[in-house]
Amino acid sequence: MNDVKRVYRFGADAAGNDVTEGRSSMNYVLGGKGANLAEMCRIGLPVPGGFTITCQTCTDYTSAGDTWPEGALDEIADAVQDLEARMGKRLGDPTDPLLVSVRSGAPFSMPGMMDTVLNLGLTDASAQGLITQTAAEHFVWDSYRRFIQMFSNVVMGIDADLFENALTEKRLMAGVRTDSELSASTLHELVEEFKQIFCSHVDPKAHPELVQEGRVVFPQDPKVQLKLAIEAVFGSWMNERASIYRKQHGISDSLGTAVNVQAMAYGNKGESSATGVAFTRNPATGERERYGDFLVNAQGEDVVAGIRNTEPIQDMATYPALAQAADDLERIFVILENHYHDMCDIEFTIEQGKLWMLQTRSGKRTARAALRIAIEMVEEGLIDRDTAVKRIDPSQLDQLLHPQLDTTASFEVLARGLNASPGAAVGEIVFSSDDAVKRSNEGHPVILVRWETNPDDLKGMVAAEGILTSHGGKTSHAAVIARGMGTPCVCGVEAFHIDAKAKEVRIDGSDVVLHEGDLISIDGGEGIVVLGAMPLTRADLTGDLETVLGWADEIRLQEDGSHPYHVRVNADNPDDAALALDFGAEAIGLCRTEHMFLGERKNIIQTYILSDEVQERSRALEELLRVQTSDFVEMFRTMDRRDVVVRLIDPPLHEFLDDPRELAVALARREAEGAPQDELSLLRARLRRIDAMAESNPMLGLRGVRLSFAFPDLPLMQVRAIATAAATLIRDEGLSPRPEIMVPLVSVASEHIQMRSIAERVIQEVESAFGVALDIPIGTMLELPRACLTADEIAPLADFFCFGTNDLTQTTFGFSRDDAEAKFIPAYLHQKLLTANPFETIDSAVLEFVRMAVSKARTAHPGMTFGVCGEHGGDPASISQLFNIAGVDYVSCSPYRVPVARLAAAHAKLANR
Amino acid sequence: MNDVKRVYRFGADAAGNDVTEGRSSMNYVLGGKGANLAEMCRIGLPVPGGFTITCQTCTDYTSAGDTWPEGALDEIADAVQDLEARMGKRLGDPTDPLLVSVRSGAPFSMPGMMDTVLNLGLTDASAQGLITQTAAEHFVWDSYRRFIQMFSNVVMGIDADLFENALTEKRLMAGVRTDSELSASTLHELVEEFKQIFCSHVDPKAHPELVQEGRVVFPQDPKVQLKLAIEAVFGSWMNERASIYRKQHGISDSLGTAVNVQAMAYGNKGESSATGVAFTRNPATGERERYGDFLVNAQGEDVVAGIRNTEPIQDMATYPALAQAADDLERIFVILENHYHDMCDIEFTIEQGKLWMLQTRSGKRTARAALRIAIEMVEEGLIDRDTAVKRIDPSQLDQLLHPQLDTTASFEVLARGLNASPGAAVGEIVFSSDDAVKRSNEGHPVILVRWETNPDDLKGMVAAEGILTSHGGKTSHAAVIARGMGTPCVCGVEAFHIDAKAKEVRIDGSDVVLHEGDLISIDGGEGIVVLGAMPLTRADLTGDLETVLGWADEIRLQEDGSHPYHVRVNADNPDDAALALDFGAEAIGLCRTEHMFLGERKNIIQTYILSDEVQERSRALEELLRVQTSDFVEMFRTMDRRDVVVRLIDPPLHEFLDDPRELAVALARREAEGAPQDELSLLRARLRRIDAMAESNPMLGLRGVRLSFAFPDLPLMQVRAIATAAATLIRDEGLSPRPEIMVPLVSVASEHIQMRSIAERVIQEVESAFGVALDIPIGTMLELPRACLTADEIAPLADFFCFGTNDLTQTTFGFSRDDAEAKFIPAYLHQKLLTANPFETIDSAVLEFVRMAVSKARTAHPGMTFGVCGEHGGDPASISQLFNIAGVDYVSCSPYRVPVARLAAAHAKLANR
Repeated sequence: MNDVKRVYRFGADAAGNDVTEGRSSMNYVLGGKGANLAEMCRIGLPVPGGFTITCQTCTDYTSAGDTWPEGALDEIADAVQDLEARMGKRLGDPTDPLLVSVRSGAPFSMPGMMDTVLNLGLTDASAQGLITQTAAEHFVWDSYRRFIQMFSNVVMGIDADLFENALTEKRLMAGVRTDSELSASTLHELVEEFKQIFCSHVDPKAHPELVQEGRVVFPQDPKVQLKLAIEAVFGSWMNERASIYRKQHGISDSLGTAVNVQAMAYGNKGESSATGVAFTRNPATGERERYGDFLVNAQGEDVVAGIRNTEPIQDMATYPALAQAADDLERIFVILENHYHDMCDIEFTIEQGKLWMLQTRSGKRTARAALRIAIEMVEEGLIDRDTAVKRIDPSQLDQLLHPQLDTTASFEVLARGLNASPGAAVGEIVFSSDDAVKRSNEGHPVILVRWETNPDDLKGMVAAEGILTSHGGKTSHAAVIARGMGTPCVCGVEAFHIDAKAKEVRIDGSDVVLHEGDLISIDGGEGIVVLGAMPLTRADLTGDLETVLGWADEIRLQEDGSHPYHVRVNADNPDDAALALDFGAEAIGLCRTEHMFLGERKNIIQTYILSDEVQERSRALEELLRVQTSDFVEMFRTMDRRDVVVRLIDPPLHEFLDDPRELAVALARREAEGAPQDELSLLRARLRRIDAMAESNPMLGLRGVRLSFAFPDLPLMQVRAIATAAATLIRDEGLSPRPEIMVPLVSVASEHIQMRSIAERVIQEVESAFGVALDIPIGTMLELPRACLTADEIAPLADFFCFGTNDLTQTTFGFSRDDAEAKFIPAYLHQKLLTANPFETIDSAVLEFVRMAVSKARTAHPGMTFGVCGEHGGDPASISQLFNIAGVDYVSCSPYRVPVARLAAAHAKLANR
Repeated sequence: MNDVKRVYRFGADAAGNDVTEGRSSMNYVLGGKGANLAEMCRIGLPVPGGFTITCQTCTDYTSAGDTWPEGALDEIADAVQDLEARMGKRLGDPTDPLLVSVRSGAPFSMPGMMDTVLNLGLTDASAQGLITQTAAEHFVWDSYRRFIQMFSNVVMGIDADLFENALTEKRLMAGVRTDSELSASTLHELVEEFKQIFCSHVDPKAHPELVQEGRVVFPQDPKVQLKLAIEAVFGSWMNERASIYRKQHGISDSLGTAVNVQAMAYGNKGESSATGVAFTRNPATGERERYGDFLVNAQGEDVVAGIRNTEPIQDMATYPALAQAADDLERIFVILENHYHDMCDIEFTIEQGKLWMLQTRSGKRTARAALRIAIEMVEEGLIDRDTAVKRIDPSQLDQLLHPQLDTTASFEVLARGLNASPGAAVGEIVFSSDDAVKRSNEGHPVILVRWETNPDDLKGMVAAEGILTSHGGKTSHAAVIARGMGTPCVCGVEAFHIDAKAKEVRIDGSDVVLHEGDLISIDGGEGIVVLGAMPLTRADLTGDLETVLGWADEIRLQEDGSHPYHVRVNADNPDDAALALDFGAEAIGLCRTEHMFLGERKNIIQTYILSDEVQERSRALEELLRVQTSDFVEMFRTMDRRDVVVRLIDPPLHEFLDDPRELAVALARREAEGAPQDELSLLRARLRRIDAMAESNPMLGLRGVRLSFAFPDLPLMQVRAIATAAATLIRDEGLSPRPEIMVPLVSVASEHIQMRSIAERVIQEVESAFGVALDIPIGTMLELPRACLTADEIAPLADFFCFGTNDLTQTTFGFSRDDAEAKFIPAYLHQKLLTANPFETIDSAVLEFVRMAVSKARTAHPGMTFGVCGEHGGDPASISQLFNIAGVDYVSCSPYRVPVARLAAAHAKLANR
């Protein structure tokens, strides 16, 4: 361990020479705060001296069960001694004490950890020394009481209210409004009271080092204070809030946090002192203006605590005692942007007119601001287009593409659920798909409220402005379809007890009972439900977004060593296709044909499936051929000259039939009611047929390519419809349709080969009938482990592979998505058995299957194309891995995710350079 | 193609010197028949000269769309010329013609293909020549009519009945009983009639080469006859019956069949001529006695056809004209066994006192005979133990473990026949193969009752529990196939008068008339038929079986470069465990604990799952702990000192609950009947709770280790029960229980790790409570693709891996077994999309997952143990691959499969040397 450097100095030595050892690139060593403090020192900005204890030290300490690694404490003691020498003061010196701040700073900005202890080093003796030195008794007692308060709360975990109550009492007794108006002697009294509170709330068994003569005392040795503070920072890395935050943001537990120990600068030394936070540009709009707040005569925590009203940073120059500092700050803003080439977020303190920088980092910003800042910085020559594109977080873009609740209006949240599909919507509650269609046709916007949705609800979902379910997770039917349609959706609103028959909702913890027609507002980006009609703000694709996406397209489509990264869309109808073209989709990567069987056409497919009469069946099939052909004609016309990958029918056929349980219940009821035998016989016969189609695990049953061997007419009808539609457009309209046929759920190569040979025969028949040549590639949908493992066997007779990573995730994990997301994935995430929901972000093993299959297939069949059309195709984290690790040529996602995917693909391409 | 040798000669040249080019090891080149003909020549046995056309030629011909490969016809023409020179006769010679037989012969014995054409070379001219030469007019016309009949039927596919009818008519007109009694002139007439039948049933378009002056004629050029016959053999390789047979036996389509062209030897040249088939030992019992049938003055097909009653081979020596040949045959029996070190099956013909060998091969035998022969050959020094073990087909052992009629019950024999294939069966009578399949698919056990069977009946024979024929001997089609399949069979039940059309049987000496669907019982080991359903008893392991299994154990447990191959049992209760010990299981590889919750205990688990009251739940859990502990005490006591791998609860909990649909129907009925509100409320509440447990795809839902995170009490209760049972036996009985705990359905390492740490805590608690040390290994059940792919992550904290290849097959293929086997796997097998049911014989991709996981885990955690406890653990073909390719240490199977697995493991070990 002795060869590990655990402490890095920053700031100047006694002679004013910079002795900084770190730099901004040492993020993982020093944390973000420590690395940027070092960097500011290097570029000559005024930073109080100090040192940073490395993240590794935290990891070593916590992983050894809160035990200090060998030598670390010595190294810290040396650094303290060095700092004392540099500052010309000593910790605890009863004549001129050094005081320090102790702040945590992880490699990623992370709320939830112990943050800051100021004024460390104050003791009864050093407080007196400081009074002697500064003659500022008020300031010293104020600093000491703040220190005791912070140390007690953040280091020892004592309830902050105990101190606030004592403070309030003193203010009331003194008849003053603010703490700064309290007298020095009152503050001195408070110091004693605070120490009492400390002593009576610390467990002597947990802290034997604080026990003197049998009772706890407030530590009077600054070295003890410092050690406890550092240990508290380390300990806070593993606390629950921090852990949850890391889990949510995919940050590894093993990174650890650094600790920054820095000489204090005082913003509370009177009217020429101040403290503040600021951004170099407006983080909400991106405008090129300074943005921030400051407080005169205050310490850092006062700004954040909101006890006193802050003033806008622009007003600082109006205070004569702060004018010079304001000038310096403006100069530093410029230096920072020129150095970091980014919008920066800073913390500063002005001590008696002298500006000190306490922190800088890249500023958080809204999507809108991010776009504007990136574009303007390109114009200013600060950054290039690649950097501009990299600066925009793809997952933020959703914000821009959907309407939002207008948060300037005041409102109360009625219930919360999962943010299943972004955007806000207002409408009247309806409880069934039919009612949704009816009311919406009458001109009322509606919100479809269901226990859960199923394919029968599609009509209603299309008619609704928004969807709310009380059950189901983020990949439930409602969520998936809603995201696909770009309809706002809140899922899993468990507080809603829906009685669809009575058409009412009772809500846990609320007296409100909702009835059909009542207005509610939902925000699917936030997962909230509000009673009544909230005003909405609609954000269009702004010019800025178009500009940046244009740059992103240039990057991702470059042939720079790696192939272009293409983005396609999952679209099942011409409207979605047209929308997706607007959003920049290059082609249709997945056209699901089963949705074309719903609505009024359900009767036809039911007849086909259930009828015993050959003639009736073949009439139904003819009718399906007619309607599907016309669907494809429209689709291919919209997508002229662009690939349209049509997947042959995939779901188990019983999805198109009545629910057998409902039918059984209806039958039982009619039996008990003594219905005529004729009616009962018919019901029984129908139930028998539907029961014959039932399966134990439909996800793994008779579906996909397997249907081709049980109901061979059906996929062949579809192939005929595709070929006929293409041939019609070529012959009659001179267009260039580019359909491709995808065979779903292949597990053995023979399935694909047989389906292909049958399909090719049908295509040839259509070619002869129309007298046109058709070029319709036939590919395989890879969505089962076996298909991936044997991709080299399937590849030679496939023109392309498209990975259905939703189903592949299901079979790789043995997770049924519907069941897993409802029953155990939330618990798995909570207990950290999984770091991410594998249905949202692609799992490493699933990715490995894709990578393996691509690699095997490329060898077996050079020149093949590979795509992904699972939901991962719209998830930025997955997109990067799919392109850069698995090596696919395109991702395909729902229309509203296309801009996100374009940007994420550009990011992936840049990361791959 | 020119460097491929397509024709191999066998037999002597004109000077009597052997010119044979093949040998017995050239099975794949010359087929079994051709290779053994060559071998017989080499060891000096009398074989009529001839040549063999290679299997490759068939493959080339059929794969090129029935087109002859270049040069092949020339090579055959050369071989014919050579044969003519060797025999001193020419094909079609009008003075002294050469006649030949043409027989197929694949590398594996394979019914269903075109078999034999005799007397080829006879034409109108050569028949006259032969009469001139032999003065045996009767013989010549009989031979010619046989030839036309066979050629028409087997080469041209003309209905055999047409010829039989003509023959019958002649017999009736002549007033004779057998064909051989017909006069030469009648036979001559028949030749003309047969030619007429031929000409009117051959399609001139399909056979332009047979058309002369606008009409079809019977081919008068022997070269044309030969070419057509060879092509017919090639074509029959791909016919449906042959394909089905290959599919069932896992024989590749690409092997092809050879064709043997051989000079005729005549068994129908009078009383000093004969033909017959024989085995060197009794193929039913294994006794050291000659076994077979012969017919005087007959050709080969007469023996098989069963038209005349054959005589036992022992009686041959009683015919003075055949005595020398009988002597020679006895001598040859000895030569053959000494040469092949095996029991041989032969075909022979005696032509005017001279013995000719037409075929030899390893004789098919019952399992019982196989054991006896193997053991006796070891005693005789003919073979060693390894060979003896190799000689027993593991899948045949089932026969011995097959049920027998319970002879302690009183019963009356309805009829007697030949004990053609051992084992007893009970089922409903069916009279056709189609009915057998149909009824059996409906879930009824059936006995197929036929006059005789033919290759067309194969499907029905597979579907039947047992087979009964009224004709045919122990070497008839029914007998041979039934023995091969291990299906009980009684042949030659002559008292049965079967009217297949009327679907009834009248019985000599009985008033009983049997109809379709009537229940009968048969015992193929005793050759008896009993009316009604008899109770069956299971046969014990015989001494011979024990001997051979003992040798097998010695082999499989050797540490000879590879590790020992262990066999465990899947057993859930002490009875099964005890049975399995008798059958030679070494340990319990899988004890499923959920079966322990069934029966009366179902109420307890239902209470645990459904109750809202904490107290009630915990009482239920206590009760479960009590009963499971006592289950384990019994189990571990039975298996003292042997490993018992206990799998924690695996199935979804709703399997223990009522069916929600039934409940919903009951509720609807009670509602309609106006039941009291109290009752309805209770029903509704119960339904709601059960519905909350419902899942869309239970196989992939909340089950296995996942239950540990939703119902943590349940698996912990089980761990406590296991540990408590072990501790009790150690403390109170001084036993050495060796339980192991297996965590099911792991997909990510964290599941296993968390479950393990919780389980270890419970085990420690029990250790303290009992004051005994427990050593309970904790392993993982690998049954998901993700677990296999990340085995190296799971391995470090697992003591063993056991592969659940049933579930692994389900997720690898995306096949729900329940649905797939009912809905599409049969069609897949029929259409050859799959070559085997992957739930019976392990699929190559599933095997690859196991191999991959073993290999990764061995690296990550050297010294781990690996097993398989899916059904593949009892399948001989899978066992070999699991040991030799995947590298597992043990297989675990159901008790009755244990002897099969022991033998299969020995085979695997021998194959791996």
